[in-house]
Amino acid sequence: MTLEKNEANKSLIEKTRELEKQYDIKLSNTQKILLTTDGSITAILDVLYGKITLTTLDQHFEDADEDHAKLVNVGEGEEINYREVIMHRNDRPLIYAISHIPLKRCSKDVCADLIRADIPIGRILKNYNIESRREIKNIFIEKPNDRLKELFNTNEDMLARDYVIINNNEILMWIKEMFPISYFTEI
Amino acid sequence: MTLEKNEANKSLIEKTRELEKQYDIKLSNTQKILLTTDGSITAILDVLYGKITLTTLDQHFEDADEDHAKLVNVGEGEEINYREVIMHRNDRPLIYAISHIPLKRCSKDVCADLIRADIPIGRILKNYNIESRREIKNIFIEKPNDRLKELFNTNEDMLARDYVIINNNEILMWIKEMFPISYFTEI
Repeated sequence: MTLEKNEANKSLIEKTRELEKQYDIKLSNTQKILLTTDGSITAILDVLYGKITLTTLDQHFEDADEDHAKLVNVGEGEEINYREVIMHRNDRPLIYAISHIPLKRCSKDVCADLIRADIPIGRILKNYNIESRREIKNIFIEKPNDRLKELFNTNEDMLARDYVIINNNEILMWIKEMFPISYFTEI
Repeated sequence: MTLEKNEANKSLIEKTRELEKQYDIKLSNTQKILLTTDGSITAILDVLYGKITLTTLDQHFEDADEDHAKLVNVGEGEEINYREVIMHRNDRPLIYAISHIPLKRCSKDVCADLIRADIPIGRILKNYNIESRREIKNIFIEKPNDRLKELFNTNEDMLARDYVIINNNEILMWIKEMFPISYFTEI
């Protein structure tokens, strides 16, 4: 019983180890933390780099297709806020992120901040005192698409994860974060 | 407005910088993250060291005196669960923590796990799907007391922080975490 209750993070440990084994790499502490934490990524980057900046690359509403509906557990055709951002320190890109947020679960205040301004989700949750929990779904490596190649100016593989933020027992947002495999290694 | 909304982590950045300046030290990335994250510390240690273990040093209920009552925002004399633990990897101590939890805000399940077993609070919150937010209060350095000297086998200064975990808009727990200043620097 106690043993079982202490296994809560087992899959995260295993996922990072499998990734290291599969690609014959050694993740730095900072990379491991960025890929597995259930805390705010913005807060971590803020404290490592001084306050970081977010630039919204795209932001719009769309009707969920089958795949997107599944990610946030809504019906097909329901409206979703789609946001694509890059977090950076001055001109240096740090982390690229995509979020999907079902409109019906998003309060007016949160929705307005998502749409109007370049505010990271971690800061939005903090500003409105939103209680939540995060469930990390996948940790993986993938090839960059053209967008990522251009943004980071590299052909390197990308470290990536996706997770959901849960509020009132429902998925408030699905988020995918990516950064080049050589980032956050120097420490 | 937008600027203001982006200042959510400003005080954390300032607190770590002040600490570095005041003591003429340079905190490592891992130290900075451990002192400021609003995510689970257990999850971070789990992924850095492989699954870590918690040993309960003391655990009892007591009536809150004036100071303790203030920390968790209850009336003087209300019952509080007091827990003192050490997180370690095999025989190596990593982080020492004290928690105060008002009995009246603690569900039966959570209370039972606090009392009966050596389960870190981050894992308890995760196991019961508890939605919460963390507010970091203070980040500081202090001299070790005899207990800490013995546990870590050192006279070194201790890096420390305290924070509250908020659930249903009320303080569910007040936590203080400490580790020797030479820990988590090697990365």
